[in-house]
Amino acid sequence: MSDFTHFDSDGKAIMVDVSGKAATERSATARGSIVMAPATFELVRGGGMKKGDVLSVARLAGIMGAKRTPDLIPLCHPLSLSSVKVDLTLNEEKQAIDVTATCKLVGQTGVEMEALTAVSVACLTVYDMCKAVDKAMIISDIRLVHKSGGKSGTYEAS
Amino acid sequence: MSDFTHFDSDGKAIMVDVSGKAATERSATARGSIVMAPATFELVRGGGMKKGDVLSVARLAGIMGAKRTPDLIPLCHPLSLSSVKVDLTLNEEKQAIDVTATCKLVGQTGVEMEALTAVSVACLTVYDMCKAVDKAMIISDIRLVHKSGGKSGTYEAS
Amino acid sequence: MSDFTHFDSDGKAIMVDVSGKAATERSATARGSIVMAPATFELVRGGGMKKGDVLSVARLAGIMGAKRTPDLIPLCHPLSLSSVKVDLTLNEEKQAIDVTATCKLVGQTGVEMEALTAVSVACLTVYDMCKAVDKAMIISDIRLVHKSGGKSGTYEAS
Amino acid sequence: MSDFTHFDSDGKAIMVDVSGKAATERSATARGSIVMAPATFELVRGGGMKKGDVLSVARLAGIMGAKRTPDLIPLCHPLSLSSVKVDLTLNEEKQAIDVTATCKLVGQTGVEMEALTAVSVACLTVYDMCKAVDKAMIISDIRLVHKSGGKSGTYEAS
Amino acid sequence: MSDFTHFDSDGKAIMVDVSGKAATERSATARGSIVMAPATFELVRGGGMKKGDVLSVARLAGIMGAKRTPDLIPLCHPLSLSSVKVDLTLNEEKQAIDVTATCKLVGQTGVEMEALTAVSVACLTVYDMCKAVDKAMIISDIRLVHKSGGKSGTYEAS
Amino acid sequence: MSDFTHFDSDGKAIMVDVSGKAATERSATARGSIVMAPATFELVRGGGMKKGDVLSVARLAGIMGAKRTPDLIPLCHPLSLSSVKVDLTLNEEKQAIDVTATCKLVGQTGVEMEALTAVSVACLTVYDMCKAVDKAMIISDIRLVHKSGGKSGTYEAS
Repeated sequence: MSDFTHFDSDGKAIMVDVSGKAATERSATARGSIVMAPATFELVRGGGMKKGDVLSVARLAGIMGAKRTPDLIPLCHPLSLSSVKVDLTLNEEKQAIDVTATCKLVGQTGVEMEALTAVSVACLTVYDMCKAVDKAMIISDIRLVHKSGGKSGTYEAS
Repeated sequence: MSDFTHFDSDGKAIMVDVSGKAATERSATARGSIVMAPATFELVRGGGMKKGDVLSVARLAGIMGAKRTPDLIPLCHPLSLSSVKVDLTLNEEKQAIDVTATCKLVGQTGVEMEALTAVSVACLTVYDMCKAVDKAMIISDIRLVHKSGGKSGTYEAS
Repeated sequence: MSDFTHFDSDGKAIMVDVSGKAATERSATARGSIVMAPATFELVRGGGMKKGDVLSVARLAGIMGAKRTPDLIPLCHPLSLSSVKVDLTLNEEKQAIDVTATCKLVGQTGVEMEALTAVSVACLTVYDMCKAVDKAMIISDIRLVHKSGGKSGTYEAS
Repeated sequence: MSDFTHFDSDGKAIMVDVSGKAATERSATARGSIVMAPATFELVRGGGMKKGDVLSVARLAGIMGAKRTPDLIPLCHPLSLSSVKVDLTLNEEKQAIDVTATCKLVGQTGVEMEALTAVSVACLTVYDMCKAVDKAMIISDIRLVHKSGGKSGTYEAS
Repeated sequence: MSDFTHFDSDGKAIMVDVSGKAATERSATARGSIVMAPATFELVRGGGMKKGDVLSVARLAGIMGAKRTPDLIPLCHPLSLSSVKVDLTLNEEKQAIDVTATCKLVGQTGVEMEALTAVSVACLTVYDMCKAVDKAMIISDIRLVHKSGGKSGTYEAS
Repeated sequence: MSDFTHFDSDGKAIMVDVSGKAATERSATARGSIVMAPATFELVRGGGMKKGDVLSVARLAGIMGAKRTPDLIPLCHPLSLSSVKVDLTLNEEKQAIDVTATCKLVGQTGVEMEALTAVSVACLTVYDMCKAVDKAMIISDIRLVHKSGGKSGTYEAS
């Protein structure tokens, strides 16, 4: 197992120098969930029909959140995303909303952080919109599920 | 169980009108964890001594993230936090880093979202700094553990 | 007619000093429209039913835009909005989408610019979402319709 | 007339995937006006000589606003503008200030939204600077007048 | 001499808790200079008459920079400035531009960082605008000259 | 000596059009210092061992500040930095902290402003963290020391 790349040999935080890296097509997909009480879950499900739509607001917040990644994560490179897609689905079994985000870019660095940030912000937005009825919701299992492009190649979560 | 407050009677998203609410002292504490491989955990633990310090960078990112909450969460009010504290501790048993954030404010709205955002951004920053050695880390159990002040009073996670 | 307040006596741009002003309840409502081709209008109208909903996205963008006002307008004071409401309605007669935004605050300065910015950003977002089918849309008649609170009192557009 | 590109086949908002598009030279020019009372118009005109210069402040705000476009418009791609030019001229006949903005980029997406945002922010800034003397100003006729580059080719407003 | 306030007793960075502090009227004035070659100085001086006006652009950038302070300085509180004034004057003797910024607020924390940030951003903007003709300019002597309000009372630079 | 590039022939501020410039590898290094009282200097030096570490916080702020450059400097192009490195060292002789920042990019414009902004924000952050014990610190000698790439070639401060 190699060492952290975000510190130099003296242990000082750096933004990794990617000047010499090739610009390749990169893609990353992240996932996560927010688990809620059954009554909250029913209220969210109802939104698609006649009430305000929690999922649409959270999807948009996730897309916009991906764009703010370099403002939030100190050592992330600023980059020009070519695609962001955020999907929220109702998971009946777990009484949860599952969030999936995929980001793409032709560039010198990967977009894992953008996908993970999109998922996080979408989950936080669901919490915000539902917190008046349920403060015990839990955001969980935010993880990278797929990554391709770049020197380290393809990663597929086991 | 009451209805969502972030939609009006037509189901349209709104920023809740808090003009009539009293400015009271409010506090919120959120928690979350990022679980990692044992070797990654050892690398992070080593940081406090001679290598770059992952926990310090993530703590700072969490504090700054709390301040960006109204930029990220669409229907959050902009507000003037009077205190942000972010703590990261090594959890040997779970091979995880536990994050706790507490935000305070004298104002018309609660600071739950600020505390939850601080925890999320701190976890994402740990992921970013360690991802070169471990892409399988999982961010989990982000939740509100305490809230006081405002009309809805004190909340304590069970 | 008095003089501009955003310049000092030497004609230098300043952020007006409101330190001595009382914190009163302030409200402002702005309006504007985006006119489009009949076929575009039909596509937007269809969104509420089975297609993507242009109006919801624009409403959210308008709310978030109001919060960015001090970042955009050089001499605007940063302030803590207590309410933002953005409404988009289909105007059959004009083949336009009409946007209305109302912002509120208890503070030392008015919120006219926040309401006008919300309307502008909502209109721009409609343009963005429909521009693949109609580049000739026109954003028009953005204006203040109502303002209350503060030393200058109530303003009602004639 | 084709369909909206900012929604997928399920009607969910997406940031369009431009990964496969060629990076070509793109340019867009937008225009708009802010109409004011004759006395306000005279005050603005006087600014170039001995008073504070409304037009200079608004020009700068427009340029900076163009750079904020991806923060404001939810589904806009972040991009690296290579040129922004904002021009404000006094229109005697209409007692208005006319604003023209041109943005350029070598990239995968067009810069129409950047040009339209620059015009909008410049107009809003004029409103802000003159509102102490005239609250009835109207921002109008914000539209795309020219666009070149990209798959859809050149567009010229009729 | 007391200890740093931005670390807790374990040496961890915190945003100081000002919840218990009284909201008083606070003011801070900072100063700084940018020294340049005589020929550059002449070009800047000429700007007030027929060329582009470096000082106006820098003044505006300084005002806007003051508003971005909490985004830039990690442990600064977000706050609602009630006044920002930035002044740039030509210092013949030193062949420099002197910048003075004064910020005000009624609140729980001081505005020293806002005044110092305004001066820094104004100096950087002068550098940016003149760097095509002079890369050897030096930004110097940025310091707090006056501060009033708050528990620590009035400070006057000696 | 040539003319300013940030104004057009009418003296109006513009963002320079770099569309036609080649994308070359560019690098810039800037330096600056913050001078403090001996007792303050000792407190900062102690930070590396058992107290909070001022230099780490300032280094991170400098890196993040470099990314905010186009938000702060009105006529700077938005760009995608490929590397940011910020170094703070204790200067015993001057009782100062010396800051050095190097930024890199493959692109159409230089990164001098990014390096200078990183240095400025790092110095401001040191001031913020130490101001409770020393308000008389002075930020000085912020200057470009090296620049390479681009049409104007290499610059080395004399």
